[in-house]
Amino acid sequence: MSSELDLDLAMVERALETFLEEELGVSGLNEYVVGLSGGVDSAVSAALAVRAVGADKVLAYALPGPTSDPGSLADGRVVAEALGISLDVIELASVVEPLIALVGAEEDRVRIGNLHARLRMTVLFDQSKKRGALVLGTSNKSETLLGYSTLFGDAAASVQPLGDLFKTQVWALAEHLKLPESVVRKPPTADLWPGQSDESELGFGYREADRVLYWLHERGASREALLDMGFPAKLVDRVIQAYLRNRFKWRPTVLARISSSAVNIDRILPRNPEL
Amino acid sequence: MSSELDLDLAMVERALETFLEEELGVSGLNEYVVGLSGGVDSAVSAALAVRAVGADKVLAYALPGPTSDPGSLADGRVVAEALGISLDVIELASVVEPLIALVGAEEDRVRIGNLHARLRMTVLFDQSKKRGALVLGTSNKSETLLGYSTLFGDAAASVQPLGDLFKTQVWALAEHLKLPESVVRKPPTADLWPGQSDESELGFGYREADRVLYWLHERGASREALLDMGFPAKLVDRVIQAYLRNRFKWRPTVLARISSSAVNIDRILPRNPEL
Repeated sequence: MSSELDLDLAMVERALETFLEEELGVSGLNEYVVGLSGGVDSAVSAALAVRAVGADKVLAYALPGPTSDPGSLADGRVVAEALGISLDVIELASVVEPLIALVGAEEDRVRIGNLHARLRMTVLFDQSKKRGALVLGTSNKSETLLGYSTLFGDAAASVQPLGDLFKTQVWALAEHLKLPESVVRKPPTADLWPGQSDESELGFGYREADRVLYWLHERGASREALLDMGFPAKLVDRVIQAYLRNRFKWRPTVLARISSSAVNIDRILPRNPEL
Repeated sequence: MSSELDLDLAMVERALETFLEEELGVSGLNEYVVGLSGGVDSAVSAALAVRAVGADKVLAYALPGPTSDPGSLADGRVVAEALGISLDVIELASVVEPLIALVGAEEDRVRIGNLHARLRMTVLFDQSKKRGALVLGTSNKSETLLGYSTLFGDAAASVQPLGDLFKTQVWALAEHLKLPESVVRKPPTADLWPGQSDESELGFGYREADRVLYWLHERGASREALLDMGFPAKLVDRVIQAYLRNRFKWRPTVLARISSSAVNIDRILPRNPEL
């Protein structure tokens, strides 16, 4: 069935592999580190990196929290084995428990989720510093547009190969890359407690939401136009609500500009250090 | 003595206060949270926020680590008292010690510094979520251009009022705002161990480096031109080296763009949620 989200997957694969190869070269560093959650996004990111720079230059970490589903670690191992990369396991419990206690977040699942996501970022960037590596991101465009991510947590990485791909497109790319079926078919989860599911928390599935997001964000469709196209009102309203409520995350930091040379406002600069 | 870094301080003060007032209004949130280190940057940020939105809407935190200088907390209290804002103290030791042990960073001061900075960010953003607040940033342009900061750590905040001001200009603004002299005159430090100093780690002082950075970054001066202007070669080379080596931090995340609507690449969007 053809859809507005269809891509030339072979071309996208080549483009993203070139991107990952070039970014590593330009950085002057040697490797990528990536957190493998056992889900499809990190599996696709890692698979692209392995094809781009070689399995020996992709270092995977599993970062289970105290209430993560044990199946996630098993899924992470399946991915690492399929890609021929090593997997280090760093258990977060010894840090995340005193952290939750320190800030008094025991009763707040959202805050606990953010604490996990930022601790994972902290550990991955620490390992990247130790190893001389870039942090390979795993964010996709659906979660970015819906704001279903933690700023300076899972959304923070050196490179985001999937940041402009909707979840539906990540799934298609995963099949194209012949990733293990168990990983491709697994329901998306932030894995903070057993049975957690993105789609039940959001109140809609990514496959249906992605088409709405495409027309809303890429084509500028109004609510009325979306209803005229036949999308259910409940879906449209929920997607629009998440899209608007979390839009501040698209510009996580706003800088007060007083000169003509504010960093990261006026000047889009290459990362390679030549004057 | 007049210098290329002189500003109309009254005008800059007004502009930054308007910025902080508008950003809070647009966010739909009620307050700012800020980490007070006892240094001049956080004192100036907090002072501007107090003038912009009122002392009752600025919540200050001191986040001492196990090896912070006890004088920093005292300096933070002086700032909070001068501004009439409350100061909560959250001691990081119970978390930072198991975190350093978890990743095995005991022997690496740079990694330990990054772990502290990211933990502080994590605690401040958690408090901002709990309170319904924006995180008030304290980064200045000198440390940004020199890369003397931790990505997704002290460099991460909702708003950066001082992000386009050189350190020399922050000092001038601090005097203009009549902040406590002990804070204005204090040597800049990341406060990871007693006696640490930015300027001894960098190998030059901000006042001399800022003029080089101005000509280098804002006016496009070459090394040769800087030497012709009379700046010492050792200073110029050290500044250029830090400027080039850390330039990747100006674009912390690089996104692979495949569509015409990649988030935060093509579209600079307002943060206020209206379609």
